[in-house]
Amino acid sequence: MDLPALTTLLRQFVAERDWAQFHDPKNLAMLIGSEAGELVAEYRWVRSEDADAHSADPAARARIAAEIGDVGLALLLLCDRLGLDPVEVMRAKLATNRVKYPVEVSRGRADRP
Amino acid sequence: MDLPALTTLLRQFVAERDWAQFHDPKNLAMLIGSEAGELVAEYRWVRSEDADAHSADPAARARIAAEIGDVGLALLLLCDRLGLDPVEVMRAKLATNRVKYPVEVSRGRADRP
Amino acid sequence: MDLPALTTLLRQFVAERDWAQFHDPKNLAMLIGSEAGELVAEYRWVRSEDADAHSADPAARARIAAEIGDVGLALLLLCDRLGLDPVEVMRAKLATNRVKYPVEVSRGRADRP
Amino acid sequence: MDLPALTTLLRQFVAERDWAQFHDPKNLAMLIGSEAGELVAEYRWVRSEDADAHSADPAARARIAAEIGDVGLALLLLCDRLGLDPVEVMRAKLATNRVKYPVEVSRGRADRP
Repeated sequence: MDLPALTTLLRQFVAERDWAQFHDPKNLAMLIGSEAGELVAEYRWVRSEDADAHSADPAARARIAAEIGDVGLALLLLCDRLGLDPVEVMRAKLATNRVKYPVEVSRGRADRP
Repeated sequence: MDLPALTTLLRQFVAERDWAQFHDPKNLAMLIGSEAGELVAEYRWVRSEDADAHSADPAARARIAAEIGDVGLALLLLCDRLGLDPVEVMRAKLATNRVKYPVEVSRGRADRP
Repeated sequence: MDLPALTTLLRQFVAERDWAQFHDPKNLAMLIGSEAGELVAEYRWVRSEDADAHSADPAARARIAAEIGDVGLALLLLCDRLGLDPVEVMRAKLATNRVKYPVEVSRGRADRP
Repeated sequence: MDLPALTTLLRQFVAERDWAQFHDPKNLAMLIGSEAGELVAEYRWVRSEDADAHSADPAARARIAAEIGDVGLALLLLCDRLGLDPVEVMRAKLATNRVKYPVEVSRGRADRP
C-alpha cells in the first residue's frame, strides 16, 4: 500500500464515524502531541545503550509500532485537514534543513550548529 | 515524489552529516516529542473556532507546514532505525482502530468509547 | 502541606523503591514530556468554549488533577536531581518574562510580540 | 519565596497583560505540552550516561532551569484557573502512586509493574 491509498482509507474511517467535526487543526495538533507523548513514554526508562535492543523485543516492538502508527495517522489527518501533501511537506523541510545544517559545520556534531 | 524516494533522500542527508550515531531510538522518540511540542505551540493561543482560518494565513501556514515536516521526518528516521515500513505501521494501526472504535458505538462521539 | 514537605515525602517514595537509578535527567525530561502528553490528551476533543465547563465535571476534574499531579511530581524529581529550587526557578523565569513581554506591547495580545 | 507568594506574583503578571482571556484550560494544557517539549529538546542528543554532566554545564543548566520554570509556571496557571492547590494535587497523586506501586513489587524495577 502507498500513502495516497492509506489516506483514502483514513478518510473513509473518519467519515464512517462522523469524526471530522472534532478534527479542527487545534485538536489535531493536540492529538499529535498526546500520541507523541505515548511514544516518548515507551523509551523513558530505557537507557540510551539499550534502546535498540529494547526496540527489538517483540512485545515492545509491537507497542512502539502502534505508537508510531498513532502519531503518523494524526499527522495525516492534519495534512488532510489543511490540504497539505505530507510527502511534499517533508521534502520541503528536508531541503530547508540541508541549508540550515551545512555538511561542513554539522558533520558529526550532535549540537548541530 | 513518493515516500520511498523521500526516505532515500533522508538517509543521504543523515549519512552526509554522520548523524546516525545520535539516532538511537530513545533520542529519536525525544526528537518526535519535542517537534510535536513545537506544532502544539503553533495553536496554543488560537481558539477552536479560529483554527482553520489561522491555518490558512500564509505565514502561519508556512510555519505549520515546517513543523509538520519536522515531526514527519523524525518519524521516518525512527521507522528507518527500527526497520519498520511507515505506511504499513499506519495501515496496521488503522485496522486496529477499526475494531477498537466500532462505527455503531463511536459514530459522532468525541469521547470515542 | 508546603512544597518542601512534599519534596521530603517524594524523596522517601523514590528511596523506598530504589528508583533513583532510573532518574537521570534525560529520563526525567522524558517523564515530564510523556505526562504532559497525557494532560494534553484530556483536552484534545474539548472545544475552547467548553474547556472550563469540562474541567468542572467531577470525573474529568479528578483525571485532570491526577495528570497535573504527575507532571508536577516529575518536575520536582528533576529539580531535586539537578539541585534546583523549583520556586526559585519559576521566580527567576517570571522575572525574565516580565522583561521579555513588556506590559505596553504585550497587553491583550495572544501572540505576545 | 514560597509557592503562594509566587502565585500572587504570577497572577499580577497575567493581570497586567490582560492575558487571562487566553488562559482557558485547553490552551494552558497546550502551553504545558509545548513547554515540556522544549525541555525534552534540551536532552534529545545527550546520552543517558552524560545527562548529569550535561546538566551541570553552566550554559546548559541555565537553559534547563528556564525550561523547567516555563513548565512550572504553566502548571501554576492551570491550577489557578481550575481552583486547584498545586501542592495538594501532587500530594494526592503521590498517595495514589504509593498504592499503585507497592514497594515489594516495584523496588528496583524500571517497568514499575
